[in-house]
Amino acid sequence: MTVSNPPPLANAQAIAERAQDHVGAGRLAASLAALASFGLRHDGGVSRETLTATDLAARRHLIDQARALGCTVGIDDCGNLFFRRPGREDLPPVLTGSHADTQPVGGKYDGAYGVLAGLEVIAALNAAGIETLRPIEVVSWTNEEGSRFGPGAMGSSAFVEPARLAGYRDVADAAGIRFGEALDAALAESHDVTRVPMARPMAACVELHIEQGPVLEGANVPLGVVTGIQAVRWFRVECTGTMAHAGTTPMAVRCDAMAAAVAIAQDLYALAPRHAATPGTPELRLTLGRWSVAPNSVNTIPGHVTFTVDMRCLDDAALDRAEAALRAVCVRHAHAPEAVTVTRFFHREPTHFPEAMLGTIERACARASRNAGRALPVRLTSGAFHDAMYLADHCPTAMIFVPSKGGISHNAAEDTEGADLFLGAQALAYTVAELASR
Amino acid sequence: MTVSNPPPLANAQAIAERAQDHVGAGRLAASLAALASFGLRHDGGVSRETLTATDLAARRHLIDQARALGCTVGIDDCGNLFFRRPGREDLPPVLTGSHADTQPVGGKYDGAYGVLAGLEVIAALNAAGIETLRPIEVVSWTNEEGSRFGPGAMGSSAFVEPARLAGYRDVADAAGIRFGEALDAALAESHDVTRVPMARPMAACVELHIEQGPVLEGANVPLGVVTGIQAVRWFRVECTGTMAHAGTTPMAVRCDAMAAAVAIAQDLYALAPRHAATPGTPELRLTLGRWSVAPNSVNTIPGHVTFTVDMRCLDDAALDRAEAALRAVCVRHAHAPEAVTVTRFFHREPTHFPEAMLGTIERACARASRNAGRALPVRLTSGAFHDAMYLADHCPTAMIFVPSKGGISHNAAEDTEGADLFLGAQALAYTVAELASR
Repeated sequence: MTVSNPPPLANAQAIAERAQDHVGAGRLAASLAALASFGLRHDGGVSRETLTATDLAARRHLIDQARALGCTVGIDDCGNLFFRRPGREDLPPVLTGSHADTQPVGGKYDGAYGVLAGLEVIAALNAAGIETLRPIEVVSWTNEEGSRFGPGAMGSSAFVEPARLAGYRDVADAAGIRFGEALDAALAESHDVTRVPMARPMAACVELHIEQGPVLEGANVPLGVVTGIQAVRWFRVECTGTMAHAGTTPMAVRCDAMAAAVAIAQDLYALAPRHAATPGTPELRLTLGRWSVAPNSVNTIPGHVTFTVDMRCLDDAALDRAEAALRAVCVRHAHAPEAVTVTRFFHREPTHFPEAMLGTIERACARASRNAGRALPVRLTSGAFHDAMYLADHCPTAMIFVPSKGGISHNAAEDTEGADLFLGAQALAYTVAELASR
Repeated sequence: MTVSNPPPLANAQAIAERAQDHVGAGRLAASLAALASFGLRHDGGVSRETLTATDLAARRHLIDQARALGCTVGIDDCGNLFFRRPGREDLPPVLTGSHADTQPVGGKYDGAYGVLAGLEVIAALNAAGIETLRPIEVVSWTNEEGSRFGPGAMGSSAFVEPARLAGYRDVADAAGIRFGEALDAALAESHDVTRVPMARPMAACVELHIEQGPVLEGANVPLGVVTGIQAVRWFRVECTGTMAHAGTTPMAVRCDAMAAAVAIAQDLYALAPRHAATPGTPELRLTLGRWSVAPNSVNTIPGHVTFTVDMRCLDDAALDRAEAALRAVCVRHAHAPEAVTVTRFFHREPTHFPEAMLGTIERACARASRNAGRALPVRLTSGAFHDAMYLADHCPTAMIFVPSKGGISHNAAEDTEGADLFLGAQALAYTVAELASR
């Protein structure tokens, strides 16, 4: 990128405002539509799972777009793509971006919006002729969704802690393809891109994302300052009974795994309202999402039932209490030792973004909203994971949310108003420009 | 069959006793082992689904065995095989038998025992040189199990009401083969067997079967007089909610299909003990056996949950009340009209076997048990369907049960003591000989 006639470096806030004012609504909308064409479905959704041929084509498109904006492009060992706009000094860069992969059936904005708004920030800086103190990098993380290869956020978590990559490489998809194979193919396809190290120092990280929940829409507020990400714990509850004939087995001698599972589930559903009865505590969210019943036959008493518990709260101590309650409920409904087992198979402590980052974002959001005659930003927490969750372990990090219509996500019906998408990109431009100027 | 020197026709009871005393334990055991070799598995189970190549080979084996005993063989339009020992007069025959098909993984005795014990009765009559007044026919019904082509008991229900056959012929198995095609192949393979009419008059029908439940074993009684078959109703309960992100969706705005399903299920499980609180009423049996959850993902609130309710009782009025309670529970837990729907997709009224038949069977069982120094027979009801359920619509019908170890059935581990199998065949010989002598 060449800035023909660089303006004097004004104070950070003035630079931020000029960057914000140069964000182009039409340019952003065109760029979102262009990326959505990779995997676009007839129902308006997007199918672009990580490292598929569609995703590789989208990656090439992003590389071309970034180079057209004057960026240099780097890729790390986990296939994360970095689009770099140099700064006046070779300091640790300010990082923004998100992911370009989708769920098997996803929408146009989950992830893609954060990447393309990052490139729009670079376009705005170019248009404003701004040279920032620090470099700015827009990242497109590999496999945030985790639908093809679990877990999700492989790219960002491996960037922060590269030792994780070795384990990820062995994960196979439903067709038996290992993540490592798919990754090597993507790296080979990016032979013209410079390899950059993992875990490089970053000055700060800001991720712009759709909310994927109903809070902002319900409040009629276009921009949200994300203060943190809920803690989460995932459990597998396994109930073992005795498979037997539904017609011939008297009730008194039954050992019905589904009856035990239902009794446990009923007690679990009672935990959240009981927790909510304590005023001022962050909400406890409980989801019993995946069930497996064997032999799953109309006229056979279930011998084995497994279900998952997804438990979230911003307060980890509340999750400690909920986990203890879950274990007690399972013991209470077990007809014999080992008849009900509880396994915690994933957990993540809450993420709290630093107040200094929140202040910058809040000013950025407030100015964009005010200029548009919209309501001022609100603070909210993220119920979903994001790549920013792992980056928060690496550098000062925060997030900006825009509303999701009906709170719908991971669905072809996912949608956000164009005006809100534009305000989000404006808030991001302000934030990134200010952070890169100090 | 030729009886070289027929004895004078004594009274029916004396004939019955002589028939009973000529049942051969070793012959029966050998015959059971021989049929089990068709589809025998390494784990001791038998895989012989209806009208498969294995089943066709087993049918040919049965035809050969019956002919060796002097029987004529007939086949009807539904592939039911009839092995006939003539009587002194050409009266409607006494029918016994069961089915030779198995579940995908079944045992050696479910069905097969009733057919082979029927052939053993003929062998015993031959050995005793008895000529009965009426013909005796041993039947092997087509597709009792219903696992390959649903519903079960196609052969016996079509025999009783031939109009059912047209509908059955269109049912396809998982490979897309229609029952009609498989049946025609079996009929073609039996070109040397006389076609006999459906719905022929029968004087009486007795089916000997393993209990498939724990009652006789629990009481340490070798023989059970089956008084009837429970009524059954099958329902599909469908709960519709809104699929949403487990992390981002506040509890207050959720519409969780699984939470509704669990609440309904919990109330349903409470019905059976409440029903049992009324002394003297037959037991209400409730099974919630088959569940389907969408999208069935750890971190997505279920948008759709379907489960089945198998409801059985000997008292149809009790099922009326239970069905009304089910519908009321579903209305109570529906967050909106149409959010929970209940569909009854199968039902059968209770079968009560006639007392005259039960008396004969009771005498038969008592004499066999007493001679063996075992406990006297008990009366019990069948929780499972049997071909006898349909035959009861056609002629005086009843059943005899022998114990199932651990109550286990539809499983390779299905088993019954050889001594009990022998006593069951003795009881059958007595019953059939007496019924055929009057």
